[in-house]
Amino acid sequence: MKFLIEGEEEIGSPNLEKFLKKNQKLLACDAVLISDTSLYAPGVPTINYGLRGLAYLEIELTGPNRDLHSGSFGGAVANPINELARLISKLQDKNNKITIPGFYDDVLPLTKKEKENIKKLNFSDEAFAKELAVKDVQGEKNFGTLERLWARPTLDCNGIYGGFIEEGAKTVLPSKATAKISMRLVPNQNPKKVAKDFTEYVKTLVPKSVKIKVTEMHGGLPVVIPLEEKAVVAAAKAVSKAFGKETVFTREGGSIPIVVEFVKQLKAPAVLMGLGLDTDNIHSPNEHFSLKSFELGILSSAYFFEEFSK
Amino acid sequence: MKFLIEGEEEIGSPNLEKFLKKNQKLLACDAVLISDTSLYAPGVPTINYGLRGLAYLEIELTGPNRDLHSGSFGGAVANPINELARLISKLQDKNNKITIPGFYDDVLPLTKKEKENIKKLNFSDEAFAKELAVKDVQGEKNFGTLERLWARPTLDCNGIYGGFIEEGAKTVLPSKATAKISMRLVPNQNPKKVAKDFTEYVKTLVPKSVKIKVTEMHGGLPVVIPLEEKAVVAAAKAVSKAFGKETVFTREGGSIPIVVEFVKQLKAPAVLMGLGLDTDNIHSPNEHFSLKSFELGILSSAYFFEEFSK
Repeated sequence: MKFLIEGEEEIGSPNLEKFLKKNQKLLACDAVLISDTSLYAPGVPTINYGLRGLAYLEIELTGPNRDLHSGSFGGAVANPINELARLISKLQDKNNKITIPGFYDDVLPLTKKEKENIKKLNFSDEAFAKELAVKDVQGEKNFGTLERLWARPTLDCNGIYGGFIEEGAKTVLPSKATAKISMRLVPNQNPKKVAKDFTEYVKTLVPKSVKIKVTEMHGGLPVVIPLEEKAVVAAAKAVSKAFGKETVFTREGGSIPIVVEFVKQLKAPAVLMGLGLDTDNIHSPNEHFSLKSFELGILSSAYFFEEFSK
Repeated sequence: MKFLIEGEEEIGSPNLEKFLKKNQKLLACDAVLISDTSLYAPGVPTINYGLRGLAYLEIELTGPNRDLHSGSFGGAVANPINELARLISKLQDKNNKITIPGFYDDVLPLTKKEKENIKKLNFSDEAFAKELAVKDVQGEKNFGTLERLWARPTLDCNGIYGGFIEEGAKTVLPSKATAKISMRLVPNQNPKKVAKDFTEYVKTLVPKSVKIKVTEMHGGLPVVIPLEEKAVVAAAKAVSKAFGKETVFTREGGSIPIVVEFVKQLKAPAVLMGLGLDTDNIHSPNEHFSLKSFELGILSSAYFFEEFSK
C-alpha cells in the first residue's frame, strides 16, 4: 500500500504532476484510491465517476494612470469598475448561458442512462435552496440542478476588487479594477482552449478607454471514469457493505485536476470514494468533517482492500 | 475676519451643519470665501460659480448564507459578484446615460451664454486624455467633456469587493458582494430624491435568488452662484489683478455640500476662489499643492479684501 499526500491541490497541484512523471516506478499500482468527493446524501454510499475541470483567470482593467477624484473627473473618463461590471455582465446571457463563442462545442451531453439515474435520485431544489438560505436556485436555463452541477460548464467570479473597499465612503474614481473568474468544465472541454477563447473574447468586450490584462491562473481537465473498471466495481461493493445500503453513482461539480494525471502517468484506474457532505462548509469558515463519516471511511477502505484483492 | 476650519468635508460634513445652525451670530459675515476649487488651467485666474451635488450609496448583495466551493455549487446557485456586475451594468445604457427612471427630469440645461463660455475655453480632449494616459475620453453621448464635468450628472462605482481579493486563486462562490456607488448631481437635482429613486430602482434589478441591502452614505446639494453678486465681482477683479490676466468663470465637477448651508444659514454669498490644479493628484497618492499657487492665493486674498471693502 502506498500513501501519497500533497498540500497543493487547491492551487492546482503545480508540483505533483512533475513528481508523478519522475517517480512512476515508486508509485506503480493497481488502482488509485482518492477520497476527495462527497456522498450524495448523509448515509448514502456513493461512488463518484466524473469531475469537472477548471480554467481560472484573472482580469485587470486599467483606466486613468492614477486614482482620481470622482467629482473632478467623473463622467468624462472611463471608470474601470463600471467597465469591469459591464464586461462580467456580458459573459453570460439572460438565460445564464456563457457567451464565449464556441464555448459549448465540445460539451458531452448526458446519456439517457445518466439522465435516468439523476431522475431516480429525486433531488429536491427546495431543500437545496433552504439549506443555503436562498429564495430560489439559479442556473443555466433548461437544465435541472444536478445536471447543472455535474454535467454543465459554468462561469463564476471568485473575487472582485477595485477602488475604496473599506468601511465608509470615499469618492475615488480608481485607476484599476480586478476580477478573478473561473469556469468549471465538463468532458470533452479543454482548459487550455477555453482559457485562450476566454482571453480573446474578453478583449473584444472593453472600450478603448480602458486597458485589459488577462492572466491564466490555473487549469485542470474534466474526467469521466468507466463504471465497468474492476476497481470501481469493488469500491461500489465496499461502500455498500460499509453503509448497509445500495450504492449510488454520481458525478461532482468540483475539480481534482491531478486525477487525470494519475490515470495517464500510472496507467491505473482512479476510484473516487469520497465521504464529504454539502454541509461540511468546504472552502468556508468552520469547515468540518464528522467522526461518523471518518468511521465509515475506515470501514469502506477495509472492505475495498478485501473486495479488490479478490 | 473669521476663520472656519473643518476636517470632515470628505465624509459629508456631518457636524458643521449643526454648528452653523447653532452659531449664526458668531459666524455672521458679509461673504463666505472658500478656497476648495480649481484653476481652469495653471496661471489662469478662475472664479467658480457652480458645484455638483452628491448622492453616495452602498449596495450589498447576499446569495447563499455562507461562502461556498465554486465547484460543488457553481452553476446551481446565484453568485452575488456576477449579480452585482449585472446590476451595475444596468445602471447605465450603451450611451452612458443613467437608467434610473426620472433621473434627468430636474437637470437644468446649460444656458446659451454658458455654452458660449465653454466654447471660448478651447478645452482639449486630447491633452486631457494624454495627461491621464487613456486612449480616449468617455462619457454621456452628445456632450463635450466640460459639459459632462460641470453640468451633467454622473454615476461612478467608487469601490467594489467580494470573494477572494488576495493574490493567487481560490475557487470560492462568495456569500456577499458590495459596491460603493456615487452620483454627482447638478442643479436642480435633489440628493434625497435621487437616493430614494436609486434605492427603489436597484431593488427591481436583482433576481429573487439574491438579497439586496442599500445604505445611504451621504449626500449634498448642487449649487450655482449668481455672477452678479458683489463678492463674486470683487473676487473676479482680485484674482485677475493677482494673476495679471482676465478671469474666467467655471463650474466644477466636485461637491462641497456645505456651501449650500453657508448660503442658507448665514444669508451671505459664497465666493469660490480656489487654486487647485488637475495635476495635484487630489484623492490620490502624492497629492500636492505648489508653492506658486500658495503665493498666488495669498495675493488674491489680499486683493479680495481690498476690492470687497470698497
